[in-house]
Amino acid sequence: MEPEDAPTADALAGYLRAQATQFLRALRQHRESGGGAEDSAAAARAMRRSARRISASLHTFRPLLEESWAEELRPELAWLSGTLAREHACQARLERLLQAVHRLSPRAADAAGGRAPGTAPPAQRTAPGADGRPDRPPAPERGPLTVGAAKAGALLDRRLTLARTRAHSTALEALGSSRFHAVADKVAVLASAVPLAPAAAALDPRLPAAAAEERLTDAAAALPLAAAGSPYNAQALIHGLSPDLSPHPQDAPWHQVRLLLRLHRYAREALGDVRAATAAEEEARLTAAGQALDRHRDAAEAAAEAASAARTPRIAPATAYALGVLHADQRHEVEAARFAFQRAWLRRPVGAH
Amino acid sequence: MEPEDAPTADALAGYLRAQATQFLRALRQHRESGGGAEDSAAAARAMRRSARRISASLHTFRPLLEESWAEELRPELAWLSGTLAREHACQARLERLLQAVHRLSPRAADAAGGRAPGTAPPAQRTAPGADGRPDRPPAPERGPLTVGAAKAGALLDRRLTLARTRAHSTALEALGSSRFHAVADKVAVLASAVPLAPAAAALDPRLPAAAAEERLTDAAAALPLAAAGSPYNAQALIHGLSPDLSPHPQDAPWHQVRLLLRLHRYAREALGDVRAATAAEEEARLTAAGQALDRHRDAAEAAAEAASAARTPRIAPATAYALGVLHADQRHEVEAARFAFQRAWLRRPVGAH
Repeated sequence: MEPEDAPTADALAGYLRAQATQFLRALRQHRESGGGAEDSAAAARAMRRSARRISASLHTFRPLLEESWAEELRPELAWLSGTLAREHACQARLERLLQAVHRLSPRAADAAGGRAPGTAPPAQRTAPGADGRPDRPPAPERGPLTVGAAKAGALLDRRLTLARTRAHSTALEALGSSRFHAVADKVAVLASAVPLAPAAAALDPRLPAAAAEERLTDAAAALPLAAAGSPYNAQALIHGLSPDLSPHPQDAPWHQVRLLLRLHRYAREALGDVRAATAAEEEARLTAAGQALDRHRDAAEAAAEAASAARTPRIAPATAYALGVLHADQRHEVEAARFAFQRAWLRRPVGAH
Repeated sequence: MEPEDAPTADALAGYLRAQATQFLRALRQHRESGGGAEDSAAAARAMRRSARRISASLHTFRPLLEESWAEELRPELAWLSGTLAREHACQARLERLLQAVHRLSPRAADAAGGRAPGTAPPAQRTAPGADGRPDRPPAPERGPLTVGAAKAGALLDRRLTLARTRAHSTALEALGSSRFHAVADKVAVLASAVPLAPAAAALDPRLPAAAAEERLTDAAAALPLAAAGSPYNAQALIHGLSPDLSPHPQDAPWHQVRLLLRLHRYAREALGDVRAATAAEEEARLTAAGQALDRHRDAAEAAAEAASAARTPRIAPATAYALGVLHADQRHEVEAARFAFQRAWLRRPVGAH
């Protein structure tokens, strides 16, 4: 990067103002969406998107920002995006698990409501099958275990639909709360004036960005990447029969790298690194690595959900069996995601540092 | 291969005589082994080894052999090696599944008898835990699902120990039967004089051997090798929740290639191809491919055993859950074995035809 292109505190402030403006626009869209579930979900997604970026910048570029202001706003943004994310996460987890049931037992998936996963999201379903019970009794030619798959699908549908409904209410409550209004007010201020630290003008924002990248590089280097790169290493299912361990301790460093990767990507975005001529390949690499870690997180949570559903009292053994298969299938996905991350991460573009 | 080295019907006859001699020696060792389980098992393994090779040669080199004699002996040898194989298969399946329980839940495996898999084969255990029930009650800190893993291990132990004991009795009965004595008599004749077809001297045994290789090559080419070579394709678990399908239809072509590969390897052995200067690398390739297909078969059968155990009436949901995890784990192994086969099979040595 040429010296005259060197990013300054002003560039960072511009980025924060732009993100704040997008947040406010999404908030307005959310209020105007009325009852439209699709518009409202899109607006919530856009709010989360900006909230994550502002929060990440407050963290990475701490030295350039007014300290007490940043430290006050950041946890509030984290609370908000966490609250808004939950409904979507329940929906995605349900779709992932029903897709797995469908893949592992096409006939059982038919019995569990007759819909292919993803074709009619429960959010928009009007009534039948919404309680998760099979619409029609299993045909006599199905064995007990196939019936178990259908029942497992129905149980997961029931649990996650309930969780999603609760998450939806919680999000609506949050958006009407005085806590939220305080956040929105602060973001509105940010859209016009970013509180910089007194010494900000003299500081190079690339230094904290480089520190964020280094934290990512160190954390990724500490992952068991050699094992992950060897297919079918069967690492992710270790302790797969001890699902009391949830969240799974072996997943934690991967989740941590996922968060650090996100901080690094947003820092690149804030400093305009993504526009550099050499950046396209690196951006593709980071995107692929990030997608692998998202998949890792989603599969780990779906596996935990299957294990948790298996603890439902008085379920039939065939249902429990199917949940065990689903659990192992999703832990297998966890392992596949680590393999994908290893491939993406180690594919450094030519000439990269 | 130089013309003067070209194998003849005599070479084939020499191979068959040698295998017959080894069979008779193993039979004598088996009779002399008295009660020693280890010696007796080794002798049975040696008998099976020779019986498989004689049977394979009778099949591959049909045109060179006296037809009605070969057609009579072959099914008898297949019956014998099948009968002798069963006890070993039960034992191997039990070890594979207990190893999986151990890998997936170290604490549960402790509860299921306190032994690490393979350290003390059930055949030599004197008494405690032989009924497969946990020796001591699960400690209070274990969750219900970990207890399920211990119970699943105990259930599998009980089932497979029973099956192994039955297979052992059946094998002993078979070895004392008049049917077996008739086979042994025929093999004794074979050890001194191989009944060749009248035209055998004029025939090149490499032609039927090449036909056997072609059957193998065609069958392997028809396998979904491109999918198998892409790690984590999740193919093996398709219909994993419909375990009424046992044996699994998708496994059949792989099992078939396993048998054809064995025929090809024995034909190479019979014609002395394995001694050729260029043969070492090819032999290593075929060995690796064969081992992958053995693992494929073993994992498929272990997965079917877990599914079958899950149909036991009145088992606890936690036990059924653990069996589901084990089933999926072993189907995952099936997929891993296909990947290993693909890698071995497509690694043709330089200069191979």
